[in-house]
Amino acid sequence: MDKRAFQFSPVQRYLDRIHEELLDLNDGNVADYIPELTRADPTWLGIAMVTVDGHVYQVGDSRQSFTIQSISKAITYGLALEDRGLDQVLSKVGVEPSGEAFNSISLEPGTGRPMNPMINAGAIATTGLIEGNPNAPPMQRILEAFGRYTGRPMEIDERVYRSESDTGHRNRAIAHLLLGYGILDRAPEEVVDLYFQQCSILVTARDLAMIGACLANNGVNPVTGVVALQSRYVEKVLSVMSTCGMYDFSGGWIYNVGMPAKSGVGGGIMAVLPGQFGLGVFSPRLDAKGNSVRGIEACKRLSKDFSLHLFHVARSTSATVMRQVYDCAKRTSRRRRSEAELAVLAEQGHRIRVYELQGELLFGSAESVGVEILSELARVDYLVIDLKRVIGTDQASILVLSELCMRIADEGKRLFFTDSKNLYRFRKHLQGSAYRGQEPGPLHFEDTDHAVEWCENQLIAEAETTGADTPVADLSHQYLCAAMTGDELEALRQAGRECAFKTGSRIFDAGDCAESMFFIFSGEVEVWVDAGAGHRLRLTSLGPGMVFGEVALVNRKRRTANVSAVTDTRCLELRFDAIPESLHVKMLMSMASHFANKIERDTQLIQQLA
Amino acid sequence: MDKRAFQFSPVQRYLDRIHEELLDLNDGNVADYIPELTRADPTWLGIAMVTVDGHVYQVGDSRQSFTIQSISKAITYGLALEDRGLDQVLSKVGVEPSGEAFNSISLEPGTGRPMNPMINAGAIATTGLIEGNPNAPPMQRILEAFGRYTGRPMEIDERVYRSESDTGHRNRAIAHLLLGYGILDRAPEEVVDLYFQQCSILVTARDLAMIGACLANNGVNPVTGVVALQSRYVEKVLSVMSTCGMYDFSGGWIYNVGMPAKSGVGGGIMAVLPGQFGLGVFSPRLDAKGNSVRGIEACKRLSKDFSLHLFHVARSTSATVMRQVYDCAKRTSRRRRSEAELAVLAEQGHRIRVYELQGELLFGSAESVGVEILSELARVDYLVIDLKRVIGTDQASILVLSELCMRIADEGKRLFFTDSKNLYRFRKHLQGSAYRGQEPGPLHFEDTDHAVEWCENQLIAEAETTGADTPVADLSHQYLCAAMTGDELEALRQAGRECAFKTGSRIFDAGDCAESMFFIFSGEVEVWVDAGAGHRLRLTSLGPGMVFGEVALVNRKRRTANVSAVTDTRCLELRFDAIPESLHVKMLMSMASHFANKIERDTQLIQQLA
Repeated sequence: MDKRAFQFSPVQRYLDRIHEELLDLNDGNVADYIPELTRADPTWLGIAMVTVDGHVYQVGDSRQSFTIQSISKAITYGLALEDRGLDQVLSKVGVEPSGEAFNSISLEPGTGRPMNPMINAGAIATTGLIEGNPNAPPMQRILEAFGRYTGRPMEIDERVYRSESDTGHRNRAIAHLLLGYGILDRAPEEVVDLYFQQCSILVTARDLAMIGACLANNGVNPVTGVVALQSRYVEKVLSVMSTCGMYDFSGGWIYNVGMPAKSGVGGGIMAVLPGQFGLGVFSPRLDAKGNSVRGIEACKRLSKDFSLHLFHVARSTSATVMRQVYDCAKRTSRRRRSEAELAVLAEQGHRIRVYELQGELLFGSAESVGVEILSELARVDYLVIDLKRVIGTDQASILVLSELCMRIADEGKRLFFTDSKNLYRFRKHLQGSAYRGQEPGPLHFEDTDHAVEWCENQLIAEAETTGADTPVADLSHQYLCAAMTGDELEALRQAGRECAFKTGSRIFDAGDCAESMFFIFSGEVEVWVDAGAGHRLRLTSLGPGMVFGEVALVNRKRRTANVSAVTDTRCLELRFDAIPESLHVKMLMSMASHFANKIERDTQLIQQLA
Repeated sequence: MDKRAFQFSPVQRYLDRIHEELLDLNDGNVADYIPELTRADPTWLGIAMVTVDGHVYQVGDSRQSFTIQSISKAITYGLALEDRGLDQVLSKVGVEPSGEAFNSISLEPGTGRPMNPMINAGAIATTGLIEGNPNAPPMQRILEAFGRYTGRPMEIDERVYRSESDTGHRNRAIAHLLLGYGILDRAPEEVVDLYFQQCSILVTARDLAMIGACLANNGVNPVTGVVALQSRYVEKVLSVMSTCGMYDFSGGWIYNVGMPAKSGVGGGIMAVLPGQFGLGVFSPRLDAKGNSVRGIEACKRLSKDFSLHLFHVARSTSATVMRQVYDCAKRTSRRRRSEAELAVLAEQGHRIRVYELQGELLFGSAESVGVEILSELARVDYLVIDLKRVIGTDQASILVLSELCMRIADEGKRLFFTDSKNLYRFRKHLQGSAYRGQEPGPLHFEDTDHAVEWCENQLIAEAETTGADTPVADLSHQYLCAAMTGDELEALRQAGRECAFKTGSRIFDAGDCAESMFFIFSGEVEVWVDAGAGHRLRLTSLGPGMVFGEVALVNRKRRTANVSAVTDTRCLELRFDAIPESLHVKMLMSMASHFANKIERDTQLIQQLA
């Protein structure tokens, strides 16, 4: 992506403008409850945004380091969930808003369980759940977790840590209370020390935006692709941020700003718009509640100016995920077919339907797709669902599609998913359940073209058992010879030369001189080009009664593609300069007519595709 | 949509299963605080779901009427916001969770402002904000608002209303307190009466699901298309539902179930998964907090089994909204071009780029689209953004696209939005700002084909000022005559008949006998078919040096399309039976060659489209 594009992007321009305007906002005071924090320059202002596409926007002091402080609570909570699981974490820390300030000791009467993990008591209890392993002590594991979010190695500000440690008497008191209630099961001093270090991790506004983007992107870092937090816990972390992240301002924050967020007394705010972006703002002057004044204002303006709100989400409908639907009466596979086969497909091809999906499959959109497919199932026998453009699935959509598979199998229809190689979880699940009960056979195709060809072959085979067709053709089957008499066909045969090609052998290569055409008597050939990296891209396949290389008759050029024999193949090779004069016009008439029909079909297809 | 599809849909099967399982859950008791409510059958269980696509699923007693009770609070709050605006409503009712039970009198110290609109005090204050108008008293307006959500006329259960009215002493007390604080400015008895009536509105589980679906669908009823609530207030209603909708269970509810919801003592629960669906459950037995036991369980299971959670949303990326991108070197408009013009477009067509968008444009996706477009702007002079498949825009995406427009105009490039007729707000905004500073001209095109044609004309005109071309052609310009000598051309001219057609006149009609072809000397014709309702669908346009009707030379049929003169046009009409024998082969060679080239281009286009 061109760097210039970002500089002039609408969002970059907007952030530049907000940054400039907020420089005039000088309310609030730098935190002084830890002596070391007073060293911050009160004029610093950095804003960064990272989208789930991985675009990074930043302005001002977005690369200035500061200590993360309370924003660390959200990340450590996620790590505790991964380490201990939901039940154990919930037994130690609740999820209800306390309605009180950040340093309140809101413990649940009786159990002593802190109300939620965003107040200090809850955060200390959470940090107490993080254990080390033989390879890494707890603090190293915490630093590594933070690094998965930010995409870079993290460090601690030793002076702030010492300063926190020297003055954190209230937090020590909390830890001892928690020990008394059995919430902590390790030495309070050790846990509080870990907590002080965690709060002293150095971050930038850009880091905070990246952390937010991971949470917006179902836990995956959108730049590095690393899983920062398991997807199933992302919604839990965002839930506590949304109800408790801004202390006693949480209801109003969701109502007015509408983004789960967490602030720290270092001057940082990290906000998340799920599915869209993460936002990081840094400015050290704080309001009475300990939130960055400019940070709050930046979030408010952004939300208002762009109508951003977590409850304003894209509707998840089939219109969004169903890219296109077509049947094979109108659009066949690349396998070239005889007129008789084309006639079968024109009549029966509607029984094969291809559904191209795209984007992210969630409950609502998967269900819509399922309903659309089922609504026309009575008219269809073969279904191909193309997943090439699907960027993600969730558990709900997998369950919905599994039920769809079973229903289709129950009805005795055949269903193929193609191009699902990026959807590992989806494939794994379907292999386990969906294809159960289907008869054995070539059930999986990497691409839609081959799946459709297989379905077409079924329709054609079905028609052949009733009708009559021959796997061996003579010149009378060739469209170019349609208007010729028996004598003329014989003259043509005499003019040509019979030849045989073994399976796999090349008949001609792209770039060869084009001086003849080939009428196929038996076998099958494939026309293909080199797609690089050793891959062949099939342009078409041809069988008995078909001709290849004939375009050069009117359009003398070099060969533009390779042709290989797929099976043992017999042909008549006819040199252009050997064609009897009297047959020339007949062949040209047939060719032009055939091409005109092909153009008509292509035009219809293009209109349908476009 | 086929009814059978729904019966067997995965979701329907799932709801059937949940319904059956929950019939065994018999905890809780029917509400008895209003005598009339005790008449409910405790075994009733109805579940309904309505998606934002408007699909309705229901099972059990989903059509059984019951009184809406507290669920009405969410709807009336939305109506109050529409009537009075945000500031006035917030001055009377707060948005912070109270942490207390539904009938608590949680008033803000000093102001007397109820903590939030979901507790009784806040709901009474909210109802007090609804005024009548000369055509409708307040209660009629409330019933009409509810009817917009449910899509049917609403009624009050008179017996429950009387029963509420006879026993609602605490609510009367609250109303008087509110009057004392100046929160109410009308007679308390009148407001409480309105409140009792509102709580006694009869709904079904299906109605609740439909109400939820409106809120999930940005305020629009997905079945009727009626705006139930202005889009900008939807997020406010969902915000208070999410933080206060389940009383002192709100933090845990969002954490565990993850759907904004509201319950009522009638036994109903209405839940919303924004962007996806609304859910309605009805079962009269309540737990100690006044919530339907089976209702809570249904929501919990659905959320768990399908991993539904409001923070689990589809990522909003350009992959989802950018349907396809192409440039006009590869794919031209339907205007047929001369070889010289095609040569210009093959060389210069990359300067025209078409972006087809789809789905819903939100901040994140619009920004991604903008970045993608800007990243290649240096190589492009004409941009066409096709909005035919865009189903919605929001304020953020309009602002982002506006900035994009200005940036493109600043660079001296031309941008067209096509097929935006369904996006009223978008068009209105862009007309006001985006095209500012663009030179006058045919700036708006209904469809992409005509916009691309206009851009192509600019490239061709630009090339003509340097090269040389003529608006009048003779037979030597015709591709069919490419291989002919001067004498042969003259012989062909003699064989034909010159003719002139006035602007707008028909040259031939679909269905006419096809016995001749037309070589254009000057003017322009359009080939079109009747698209019904008086609309013409243009297949192609042709100018000097081009030929039409020539396919019939090899493929003798009736005309398949109409041809009209767009401007005064001169042609040579050549009857097929008048073509000199010696020229026949030359014309056939040229035709087959030309068709072969066309097929090659079409094949590339199809591969690119498919």
